[in-house]
Amino acid sequence: AADPDPLQDFCIADLSQKSFLNGYPCKDPTTAKAEDFIFKGLKDASIISDENPWGAAATLAFARHWPALNTLGVALVRLDLIPGGVIAPHTHNLATEIVFVTAGELYIGFVANSDDVSAPNKLFAGMVKAGEAFVIPRGLVHFQMNKGTINASTINFLNSHNPGISFLPLTLFGAQPAVDP
Amino acid sequence: AADPDPLQDFCIADLSQKSFLNGYPCKDPTTAKAEDFIFKGLKDASIISDENPWGAAATLAFARHWPALNTLGVALVRLDLIPGGVIAPHTHNLATEIVFVTAGELYIGFVANSDDVSAPNKLFAGMVKAGEAFVIPRGLVHFQMNKGTINASTINFLNSHNPGISFLPLTLFGAQPAVDP
Amino acid sequence: AADPDPLQDFCIADLSQKSFLNGYPCKDPTTAKAEDFIFKGLKDASIISDENPWGAAATLAFARHWPALNTLGVALVRLDLIPGGVIAPHTHNLATEIVFVTAGELYIGFVANSDDVSAPNKLFAGMVKAGEAFVIPRGLVHFQMNKGTINASTINFLNSHNPGISFLPLTLFGAQPAVDP
Amino acid sequence: AADPDPLQDFCIADLSQKSFLNGYPCKDPTTAKAEDFIFKGLKDASIISDENPWGAAATLAFARHWPALNTLGVALVRLDLIPGGVIAPHTHNLATEIVFVTAGELYIGFVANSDDVSAPNKLFAGMVKAGEAFVIPRGLVHFQMNKGTINASTINFLNSHNPGISFLPLTLFGAQPAVDP
Amino acid sequence: AADPDPLQDFCIADLSQKSFLNGYPCKDPTTAKAEDFIFKGLKDASIISDENPWGAAATLAFARHWPALNTLGVALVRLDLIPGGVIAPHTHNLATEIVFVTAGELYIGFVANSDDVSAPNKLFAGMVKAGEAFVIPRGLVHFQMNKGTINASTINFLNSHNPGISFLPLTLFGAQPAVDP
Amino acid sequence: AADPDPLQDFCIADLSQKSFLNGYPCKDPTTAKAEDFIFKGLKDASIISDENPWGAAATLAFARHWPALNTLGVALVRLDLIPGGVIAPHTHNLATEIVFVTAGELYIGFVANSDDVSAPNKLFAGMVKAGEAFVIPRGLVHFQMNKGTINASTINFLNSHNPGISFLPLTLFGAQPAVDP
Repeated sequence: AADPDPLQDFCIADLSQKSFLNGYPCKDPTTAKAEDFIFKGLKDASIISDENPWGAAATLAFARHWPALNTLGVALVRLDLIPGGVIAPHTHNLATEIVFVTAGELYIGFVANSDDVSAPNKLFAGMVKAGEAFVIPRGLVHFQMNKGTINASTINFLNSHNPGISFLPLTLFGAQPAVDP
Repeated sequence: AADPDPLQDFCIADLSQKSFLNGYPCKDPTTAKAEDFIFKGLKDASIISDENPWGAAATLAFARHWPALNTLGVALVRLDLIPGGVIAPHTHNLATEIVFVTAGELYIGFVANSDDVSAPNKLFAGMVKAGEAFVIPRGLVHFQMNKGTINASTINFLNSHNPGISFLPLTLFGAQPAVDP
Repeated sequence: AADPDPLQDFCIADLSQKSFLNGYPCKDPTTAKAEDFIFKGLKDASIISDENPWGAAATLAFARHWPALNTLGVALVRLDLIPGGVIAPHTHNLATEIVFVTAGELYIGFVANSDDVSAPNKLFAGMVKAGEAFVIPRGLVHFQMNKGTINASTINFLNSHNPGISFLPLTLFGAQPAVDP
Repeated sequence: AADPDPLQDFCIADLSQKSFLNGYPCKDPTTAKAEDFIFKGLKDASIISDENPWGAAATLAFARHWPALNTLGVALVRLDLIPGGVIAPHTHNLATEIVFVTAGELYIGFVANSDDVSAPNKLFAGMVKAGEAFVIPRGLVHFQMNKGTINASTINFLNSHNPGISFLPLTLFGAQPAVDP
Repeated sequence: AADPDPLQDFCIADLSQKSFLNGYPCKDPTTAKAEDFIFKGLKDASIISDENPWGAAATLAFARHWPALNTLGVALVRLDLIPGGVIAPHTHNLATEIVFVTAGELYIGFVANSDDVSAPNKLFAGMVKAGEAFVIPRGLVHFQMNKGTINASTINFLNSHNPGISFLPLTLFGAQPAVDP
Repeated sequence: AADPDPLQDFCIADLSQKSFLNGYPCKDPTTAKAEDFIFKGLKDASIISDENPWGAAATLAFARHWPALNTLGVALVRLDLIPGGVIAPHTHNLATEIVFVTAGELYIGFVANSDDVSAPNKLFAGMVKAGEAFVIPRGLVHFQMNKGTINASTINFLNSHNPGISFLPLTLFGAQPAVDP
């Protein structure tokens, strides 16, 4: 479980409002349309330019991108990685994730927490091919790497409408201001 | 959202135990392997035989099929539908669902609940093409139909490791014993 | 559990506000009166007219009828059924329900979900007399029928302030627009 | 709201097991019968003997009395009070309660918590007649008194299968050993 | 456990808003400063005047005192007790508490609920010295007494940002209006 | 909120049992003693040897160290840091934390998540003196440093009985096997 339970059928986020809440206020439900519940933004692979240092891109479908997800406790991410590309170690502080590989193959892993009695700092990782899935427990450090020779893509599911992404290269070494000199 | 929160990194279901709990007991965590976190059972399309009255099949990846999901609050389903195939109206009594279409196109919809003030019994439905997604709020009646001319497939995500499926043609008209004489 | 936890003693719904949230905003708590916590709307049996096709009526006490229930995770319903009357199969997508029979006797049942390993689509039903209670697990299809010779009444409790009602005859066959032509 | 969410249709408590858990283990679900979901123990008024110092009695239907309630997040209590009878101040540490009066009339009230900004230690109380209901927010001190001239009865609903009862005359003055000499 | 889950990194309470919600609205997150996450109000011992009938004082750090706590499900209290001082029996209706003694020593206890099968109304109490901790389960009646000869202080932690305090001498005997004449 | 709600007054972990669950089974509640609810293990400062590369030590009071915490959704940690000592960046994947400084002063900070719209990768950090507190939102990267000239100590509170610790130097660079060759 993550996210408070919904209290009505849906609560499509009203992103035009300036109020700040735990989550988003809803738009008037009488204006809901079928199109609100359909999301088309994950359809196409990201073009990875030569200058992308990671050789990888993530496209998000969280509540602020797909307002119908607000209060429903679910979100999506699409990953695209060229050969050699990597989604560097990161955490989703508020959600569990399933990675479903739709093209190519990826080396995916997570690291058990340092206080895990039976598996402290243990890496659980393996090759995941198109059509296969990998599950990452809530909040743990994980990564995806394209060790193959063709582009790889995934569709990832998270059980929060705003799961958070602490991308560790940035949170550790790119924080503003710097963590410490 | 749904499911109690996890209290450790993972709790891989031990399906060999005869004890009955809310959820499953875990197997000894020292025996966890990377393979436990990978699921391969959704890779291939179901073959829909001529005798399948619905022209459709669902392949499940709930905690009892993929034990690593136990306590993590997530599950998957793969749908395959031949042209004309239909996944008849059903509910998942314990989860919200996102349908991600991976091949073909589908007519997908849900019906708002009868007590929804702004949209009682209102159908929200539309055509969803490969690469697009559709979200179904927790517990509502919904369906998928292949109105196209080629086979369609989806990968669906649910925010419970055991979301339940009340397939209404069966729960209403095929209950054992019958609902009423 | 259903509904997010309360974060103060009470949060009486302010139904006059036009804002839309997950749940309702509260009215100014300094205006709370003892009367807010008392509900009188379930006192009298509904008169079932000859033209009522179901021979039954439901009177609701959800948060929008009884604003003090907002955030408290509880609601009530009263059912009245003439002999032969039926509350047709329906689900509460967000709550478990206890039916407490206050007059007459009813045939009450629920159908286990189609994916229940031990009891797929199994009907659990029986006669429940005045003073007896029947529990319906969260989100499952259930119904009430008056097979007796006198009027029957119940007071039902649900563990959400807005449990939802998918009345299946209407959601399946009366959706607007129709589910499919 | 209260109680962890259920992870299957039902988990009827197996009270014969000696194991201790958060909640109860379930009995084998293949042995579930319709009768498990019906409770008859609240049917009759308690006889209040002359020696009952409170002039009142509470009959419980919690998970240990009605095993089908286990994991479902709901419970019942029946109160019977002779004229002058009182259910002295108490709290349910884990649940919100609705009192539904089925006979007679009662003076019912709760006291807002001492840190409630708008209503510290404020009493919200009133007369509640047969057919009327009163809601008591989670964990607050409350009481019921029969100020009428006839016996009164209630059926109370709580949103936990084991809501707890801290009966203040006993917890304060009858604790074993005594709170302080 | 308690409080709805957070849906973003933080939601610092905006106490200037007049709207009433379950919890508080957030201030504009772009205005968050490091200082918001630091609280200095528990630093000094309360001066207990001769006229303080309890010989004790509680200083609160709930969400309305420390707005950064809003939605994060945690709060603090500092207690100071002169010799003979007592924090009389009370409950926190929405939270579990850990008392950590920072100076002196205290006699601390809670009373199991009256419906606890194995320990009805049983007192669990003992002397807790500086550097030691005592845990009080959610919602149960508890107290702290300074039976020593020097001033005692504690820092207490609760797992709700607004745990509630039903101080029983006041809720029982000081309610406004009085519980009953 | 974190951790499933308790379903009884307490459920003291029975660490002698070999069964694996989400959390721990309880020991027989009739054997509970007042001493179970008192924890003495955080009383003394850790001695930091010259060979400790971090100049810091953490002493835990989670459910496996203090069994009474099981199911109650709370835990403690004590930190000791010599001048120059550091608790390197880490996350608690399942809990929010409050750091209460009991001696010395510390530079404490957390980094907002990389997807935080208003504050991506923003460091919120400051000096926290004895008697002051700092709150770290659930799952975010944070650290503590002793920039002072005397030893510093803290008592930290977390809202889960097993909050997890992903100590990033170890999970990133010390995982077994290594994250990547």
